[in-house]
Amino acid sequence: MSERFDMIVLGAGSGGLTVAQRASRLGARVALFDPDVLGGTCVNRGCVPKKAMWFAAHIADMHRLAADIGFQTSPMALDWARFRTLRDQYIAGIRHRYAMRLEAADIHVVEQAARLVRADTVATESGLQACAPHIVIATGSRPRQLELPGFELGMLSDDIFALDAPPQRLAIVGGGYIGVEFACLMRGLGCEVDLLVRESLLTDFDLELVEALAVQMLAHGIRIMRNTQITAARGQPGKVTLEATDGAEYGIYDAVLWATGRVPNSGGIGLEELGVERDGHGHVLVDAFQNTNVAGLYAVGDVTDRKALTPVAVAAGRALADRLIGGHADAKFDDSVIPSVVFSEPPLGAVGLTEQQAHARYGDAVSVHTGRYTPLLWMVAGRSEQSVVKLVCIGDERKVVGIHVLGPGSDELLQGFALALQKGLNWSDLKAAIAIHPTAAEELLLLH
Amino acid sequence: MSERFDMIVLGAGSGGLTVAQRASRLGARVALFDPDVLGGTCVNRGCVPKKAMWFAAHIADMHRLAADIGFQTSPMALDWARFRTLRDQYIAGIRHRYAMRLEAADIHVVEQAARLVRADTVATESGLQACAPHIVIATGSRPRQLELPGFELGMLSDDIFALDAPPQRLAIVGGGYIGVEFACLMRGLGCEVDLLVRESLLTDFDLELVEALAVQMLAHGIRIMRNTQITAARGQPGKVTLEATDGAEYGIYDAVLWATGRVPNSGGIGLEELGVERDGHGHVLVDAFQNTNVAGLYAVGDVTDRKALTPVAVAAGRALADRLIGGHADAKFDDSVIPSVVFSEPPLGAVGLTEQQAHARYGDAVSVHTGRYTPLLWMVAGRSEQSVVKLVCIGDERKVVGIHVLGPGSDELLQGFALALQKGLNWSDLKAAIAIHPTAAEELLLLH
Repeated sequence: MSERFDMIVLGAGSGGLTVAQRASRLGARVALFDPDVLGGTCVNRGCVPKKAMWFAAHIADMHRLAADIGFQTSPMALDWARFRTLRDQYIAGIRHRYAMRLEAADIHVVEQAARLVRADTVATESGLQACAPHIVIATGSRPRQLELPGFELGMLSDDIFALDAPPQRLAIVGGGYIGVEFACLMRGLGCEVDLLVRESLLTDFDLELVEALAVQMLAHGIRIMRNTQITAARGQPGKVTLEATDGAEYGIYDAVLWATGRVPNSGGIGLEELGVERDGHGHVLVDAFQNTNVAGLYAVGDVTDRKALTPVAVAAGRALADRLIGGHADAKFDDSVIPSVVFSEPPLGAVGLTEQQAHARYGDAVSVHTGRYTPLLWMVAGRSEQSVVKLVCIGDERKVVGIHVLGPGSDELLQGFALALQKGLNWSDLKAAIAIHPTAAEELLLLH
Repeated sequence: MSERFDMIVLGAGSGGLTVAQRASRLGARVALFDPDVLGGTCVNRGCVPKKAMWFAAHIADMHRLAADIGFQTSPMALDWARFRTLRDQYIAGIRHRYAMRLEAADIHVVEQAARLVRADTVATESGLQACAPHIVIATGSRPRQLELPGFELGMLSDDIFALDAPPQRLAIVGGGYIGVEFACLMRGLGCEVDLLVRESLLTDFDLELVEALAVQMLAHGIRIMRNTQITAARGQPGKVTLEATDGAEYGIYDAVLWATGRVPNSGGIGLEELGVERDGHGHVLVDAFQNTNVAGLYAVGDVTDRKALTPVAVAAGRALADRLIGGHADAKFDDSVIPSVVFSEPPLGAVGLTEQQAHARYGDAVSVHTGRYTPLLWMVAGRSEQSVVKLVCIGDERKVVGIHVLGPGSDELLQGFALALQKGLNWSDLKAAIAIHPTAAEELLLLH
């Protein structure tokens, strides 16, 4: 017999945890199923461990720069096993707090996979059954595995966090944000890195800033091979060669990271049987309210066809709970302004339209204001790499429709500007604003 | 005989350079007088060298933290003379670019002090005379010198930039932003620092965040003595003792920094003779348009009674040129939203009203939302210091009237939020915004 709940959530990642906890706070009796540890990709195999490694790489980069500004330094090596232990302790602490919160909220947590057996019922392999009028699919995504010879010789992003020692020579296959981020941070931590990219880098970002980032990556010693489609990996673990379509060979590498995209965890949970619509990649199709095409079934997070970012999953989960349990029939989140940051070295941030997208949409009404400058610290260190800031505007009043930033500080400065853009931002607002000097952020106010 | 110009500017700091260059671009014939190097306080003895030292201290702090996250490190010392050379080269580069720009703009630069002899005429000691219908006083400010025994045993902030080696034991007298910034950065660079404060720290900033900063300064080993009014310095250079009103003695110090405020450079330039009104501290009184009480005489920057910040001087200079030369009769700058950052460790930022100011102005209509969190990197390093973010709101719609941030990233994240506040920001806007994860900036969106 099925136990009855007000809501069932499949998946205890950022989206699932949010919807479960908020629904519970609003009075719902909630069951949460996940065979894996709490926190999902973001906490365990994504944003959080990545950011910790980014900090470590940044500290290593700063240490190299230290010598250039007059510090007497000696080389500094990372004890990977020690760092991993500390990082894992931190992450275990996050999971522990989640567990306590779920317990305090009296959410029924089942550490098993569940599949839909009816639109209102899920079942586990061990024979547990639960039913609810609302079932939320929040099963997330996983790294894509390619069907090519020797694929097993490489790692996925999940695996790289488990390394206890760095590879000396690392190939990263893939030019999306995961590939770029790992290229920069593994380079920062001392690896020789080849980045092999099928077509171009970071296709969702503004072309000019991506090229400026590529220049800096090259200057840091990362080799970037574009238009290079890998067709096979050969060799043995620890000694891998990559082959490309044109017959070119790359390597020998100590390790290979496949950063070739992510696929939604939408298979084997009963969606086909219930006729839940998915796109060609397997993403569950949802409307602006996170409804699937089947009544009573909803989806949030990376399993859906919306932007695969933790804060988007969180916003979706919050709105969905408010709607289903909180009685706010119109609750949905505004996805028109979604800022994002690539934690490269230096970081790249964007909100709104790229120059290319704006031209496609608004034609001649577009005006673009770009500034390049070498940050103060780099100038003192005798470096000449340039940060880039860009505003994409439309119309006579120069309404800002896109903000793009590359350089130190871009990771932190973007959020507030995205908020201002969301409020409706014109060129004149930026000109009327008082700067904070000397910062990277003020450069957006100083454009001509 | 006087040479005629459209505008005369006294002082080639941030404010003077701005008004001179903009007036010139708008078609005016401009003369610029300054006996000192181009760039004024900000470039030569303020923001710029301070920020360079802040970076050096930050790098040293990061190096200490590196050991806590698993880097095998050895101690790292700064070669002060080398750093100073590099920093001074950078600053010389800025001055060189200013000089080229002034030359390109055909601005008549006179490297002499000038004083007003009539409301439309200035003269130098060497006998040069110039006249113009518009004369802008932009002579800036200088560190205050106290009338107390042994004052000459200490340094001023100008002097600290000239040090070729750090003092081992340093006393800093003064709890304003200059005292706090130098306390943090000299501590970061390895000095033992006592901060002696007459009353309380950073009185213009939100009390709760100032106290949280003080906790971190103490944790970094800075000794803070409040309610300590220094009445005398005794001893000899390199071996100084400080005496306080209550008879207490502090020291022995290798060096003392007097950070006891700044005074405007408004004496000896003919203002008294022309009846230009000043406040009790000597600041030139100006209206919202930078007019003094004497027709044809204007003032911008730290010499005035407006907020003594480079970007305020720049905004004032820009508006003044637009009004006097550009024909925009209503040009003035909006000083209702002036963000500022104390480059402490960690940095402290604020825009709008403090909690105390809001309560005084709006009483019960005020609501305050405060969040404390330990940043990711510090958690991994096993540290427990907390960052603090605070929103001060008013009314049922919770209109944001103050934003206060303490912690890593505060220096860069504030600018955009200040822009959003300037646009009119409500609590609901922050709740509707999509976060950038994981950042310090997103914490302002996650408040309850």
